[in-house]
Amino acid sequence: MFDRFPDGFQALIQGASRGIGLECVRQLLAEPRVGRVYATARRPERAERLQALADEHPERLVVLRLDVADEASIDDAAATVAARSPRLHLLFNVAGLLHDEHGMAPEKRLHDVRLENLEKSFRVNAFGPLLVARAFAQLLCHREHAVLANMSARVGSIGDNGLGGWYAYRGAKAAQNMFTRGIAVELGRRSRTLICVALHPGTTDTALSEPFQARVPEGKLFTREYTVSRLFTVIDGLSPEASGSFLAWDGQAIPW
Amino acid sequence: MFDRFPDGFQALIQGASRGIGLECVRQLLAEPRVGRVYATARRPERAERLQALADEHPERLVVLRLDVADEASIDDAAATVAARSPRLHLLFNVAGLLHDEHGMAPEKRLHDVRLENLEKSFRVNAFGPLLVARAFAQLLCHREHAVLANMSARVGSIGDNGLGGWYAYRGAKAAQNMFTRGIAVELGRRSRTLICVALHPGTTDTALSEPFQARVPEGKLFTREYTVSRLFTVIDGLSPEASGSFLAWDGQAIPW
Repeated sequence: MFDRFPDGFQALIQGASRGIGLECVRQLLAEPRVGRVYATARRPERAERLQALADEHPERLVVLRLDVADEASIDDAAATVAARSPRLHLLFNVAGLLHDEHGMAPEKRLHDVRLENLEKSFRVNAFGPLLVARAFAQLLCHREHAVLANMSARVGSIGDNGLGGWYAYRGAKAAQNMFTRGIAVELGRRSRTLICVALHPGTTDTALSEPFQARVPEGKLFTREYTVSRLFTVIDGLSPEASGSFLAWDGQAIPW
Repeated sequence: MFDRFPDGFQALIQGASRGIGLECVRQLLAEPRVGRVYATARRPERAERLQALADEHPERLVVLRLDVADEASIDDAAATVAARSPRLHLLFNVAGLLHDEHGMAPEKRLHDVRLENLEKSFRVNAFGPLLVARAFAQLLCHREHAVLANMSARVGSIGDNGLGGWYAYRGAKAAQNMFTRGIAVELGRRSRTLICVALHPGTTDTALSEPFQARVPEGKLFTREYTVSRLFTVIDGLSPEASGSFLAWDGQAIPW
């Protein structure tokens, strides 16, 4: 696993306090080729499972505060990483927002659309990954193999939208896909070894999908372990031509 | 022209104080089949050319205040229209934002991305048309021919993005395209006669394109008159199967 990456490579998981992000950290720590993992959380003091992992791996896991809605926290995290690692080889923007405890939920109908919820969704799902890419670009552009992956979703495919609804989430993921594509073009001029992709994880048993799991067909709800192992297999198999594409957990391309 | 629309049809142009929006109002008023035109402006008191047209056409042109960044103003405008017209047949979201007098400009590089400018761009280019659609959906869903058109742009095509840059504008137009698609699916269930499309106007001689016109090849910068006549020809030729698509000024489909 991770054979294309240099031995001792440096990874950063943005949004690692729980769900898919936390599982990414776990699987990276189990991989001997990984030198150091930076794991970010909006409120590290409340990320107990992540802190427990850091206690087990004091040399290899660094927990950082990073709130995608707070530009300064992103830049601060990048400065902290830059002070310890001359380069990053894997950056995975995992944090996502579909619903919250303040009544935000995916819109069933146009009538349910609220400006406030559009703003929340876009801040986390679209603007966040872009601002993280801005802050960490310098650390990702070098001559070693590197991957910048953004967690997208199949519902963010415009061409594939045959159901409607979910405006704030779908729109934000479509915007994120545009950003991923633009970043791939721009950073591709600065580094021939950096690959930027949008990834669809499949519906996974996390807090994000929890309210919608009843609709998932039998056997189609992935465990976090399975999803991360599939996503890492996709990341591991990426060749430079894949940069700027939108891929599912099984490696299949998804239309924009 | 506009033969598919009922005689005396009712149109609304959102963002009509200048540029393409103002020219849409002019051409609609020159068309005898048009019963009434609602023209919205963020600050109607400063929209002198629009007010001059209203003085010339006191029976057929109604100027309304509508600021896409202000949800209440959108709902107020919809209530005003509903009080005068039982149904709308054409709604064109034209208002767009690429640069402003506060230093907002399309980003040449990732380094130029600013959260504040992302928020401004998305509010006008993406959230605005969606909130307008929410407010006017009821007036557009009926049994007569009707079109909801959103002004998109070819640079909002993810698949077509081979240059990078322009993050805030490209991302917002991609999100708007997702919204158009979702609205087409949802309102298509409520009305068999409503067609929803995203339109690319071509580079047109307006304040929006002004700073970038030097790069436009000779003969490729459209006058506002030409652009609007081409867009109205596209709108006029739309069949129900076109709903949910992204079309250029010449009627050609653009990839998402």
